[in-house]
Amino acid sequence: MTGRTARRRVLRVQAGDGTVAGAASDPRADLLAVEEPLEIRLNGTPLTVTMRTPGDDLDLAAGFLAAEGVVAEPGDIAGIRMCDENVADVTLAGPVPAAAEGLRRNFLTTSACGVCGKDSIDTIRVRARYDVSADPVQVSPAVLASLPVRLREAQRVFASTGGLHAAGLFRADGTLLTLREDVGRHNAVDKLIGRALRDGHLPLAGHVLLVSGRASFELAQKALVAGIPVLAAVSAPSSLAVELAEESGMTLVGFLRGTTMNVYTGADRLPG
Amino acid sequence: MTGRTARRRVLRVQAGDGTVAGAASDPRADLLAVEEPLEIRLNGTPLTVTMRTPGDDLDLAAGFLAAEGVVAEPGDIAGIRMCDENVADVTLAGPVPAAAEGLRRNFLTTSACGVCGKDSIDTIRVRARYDVSADPVQVSPAVLASLPVRLREAQRVFASTGGLHAAGLFRADGTLLTLREDVGRHNAVDKLIGRALRDGHLPLAGHVLLVSGRASFELAQKALVAGIPVLAAVSAPSSLAVELAEESGMTLVGFLRGTTMNVYTGADRLPG
Repeated sequence: MTGRTARRRVLRVQAGDGTVAGAASDPRADLLAVEEPLEIRLNGTPLTVTMRTPGDDLDLAAGFLAAEGVVAEPGDIAGIRMCDENVADVTLAGPVPAAAEGLRRNFLTTSACGVCGKDSIDTIRVRARYDVSADPVQVSPAVLASLPVRLREAQRVFASTGGLHAAGLFRADGTLLTLREDVGRHNAVDKLIGRALRDGHLPLAGHVLLVSGRASFELAQKALVAGIPVLAAVSAPSSLAVELAEESGMTLVGFLRGTTMNVYTGADRLPG
Repeated sequence: MTGRTARRRVLRVQAGDGTVAGAASDPRADLLAVEEPLEIRLNGTPLTVTMRTPGDDLDLAAGFLAAEGVVAEPGDIAGIRMCDENVADVTLAGPVPAAAEGLRRNFLTTSACGVCGKDSIDTIRVRARYDVSADPVQVSPAVLASLPVRLREAQRVFASTGGLHAAGLFRADGTLLTLREDVGRHNAVDKLIGRALRDGHLPLAGHVLLVSGRASFELAQKALVAGIPVLAAVSAPSSLAVELAEESGMTLVGFLRGTTMNVYTGADRLPG
């Protein structure tokens, strides 16, 4: 099962009016978003497993490693291949960086019993090699407001399953460059950034990343590592996403719906 | 910052009509859902980190360990405490089970290069100790249709931030027993199940778990480990969630909106 959607019989049920327990039901076929585990290996050794929608798996592996600070440019990757339909293996050109060791241990490198408040960002964040704070890009509110519509129009799969998150990479004029979808929104972003990395397009200066759901710390960090100066989300950002965006000089826009939006940080990139 | 919400200044921007680049803007205060890392330790050794909304952290730690097959009843936990505001430490009563070792390695225990199709479920699923397929509970479509409304009514925080996922545990007659919210929906479910475990209420036979978003494999697995026979989701399930539900004899309902719903598996629990 390597497609992005799977057909499945489903019973469509209409509840009674509350006073009657009965229900009308109607069997029909329904399209589901496919979810399968992808094991990512580094130099042949299992590193992590992510539940993802199959497709663009090599980009996903590259993007995941980029977000974790393990690779940063095409030359860091000596080889990348699927060694099975659900296993991607990345061979590094150089030695395995410390970041990968931390990842393998799957826990924070805390010296004491304490990850809290301001410190927690420092502990969990990956050092980004690009400084987005100096990015002079300007994006008009009218362009920002148009992005969700453009993303949805490009999302054929989303329309049919309702089960996929989307991430879109846009130019500042609103041109959609890349769209990726996945049952996991972090995977959609990894696929998009992994593709850019493999094409030698990092940093993505002057670009806008739009995500179809909420903006978490993790997504803000992925954008930052890729050098993206503007992150926009259809729904709410988390507190830590806003803190990271502020610290890094990234523009963070949330609740991008209709013609309105909330600008949490970096409002100077939106001409008034 | 240990609250569930944080107040933050935000610029509310209204885009121009497309021909004009200008925008009206309005600074205001906005409530954000707090996101902070929680490190879960097992017998004092760091096991994993999850990005969560603070609150019910001991339940979260217990529920996470339950979902991973490390603990199953109150007696399995000799001690559980916060050793810092973002660090929970669980001391086991007995030896550390193999499941925790697999978790610590953070990858699948695959003997060969292959996690695919039907096999992938066997590889990633946690052995559940309860058989939900024999659960005789019946839940009327009218009750199911009422659950999202009951959940939203109980979700004060959701209403104010728009940034929190919710999970609700219901009796078959629609009574809401427990509600948990989090920036991560898996955390909301872990908090709910961890509370039940610590109270000695597992298995949750005859109960319904409602999640505010989509139903992934991971959520179906958590429900299964807790012995919950009916999982309902406001949005779409993934292919693997449906496969797991079918294999285990769990009832899986998706797109629970208004008076209609899609029943993917176990329709015999809904009286017609």
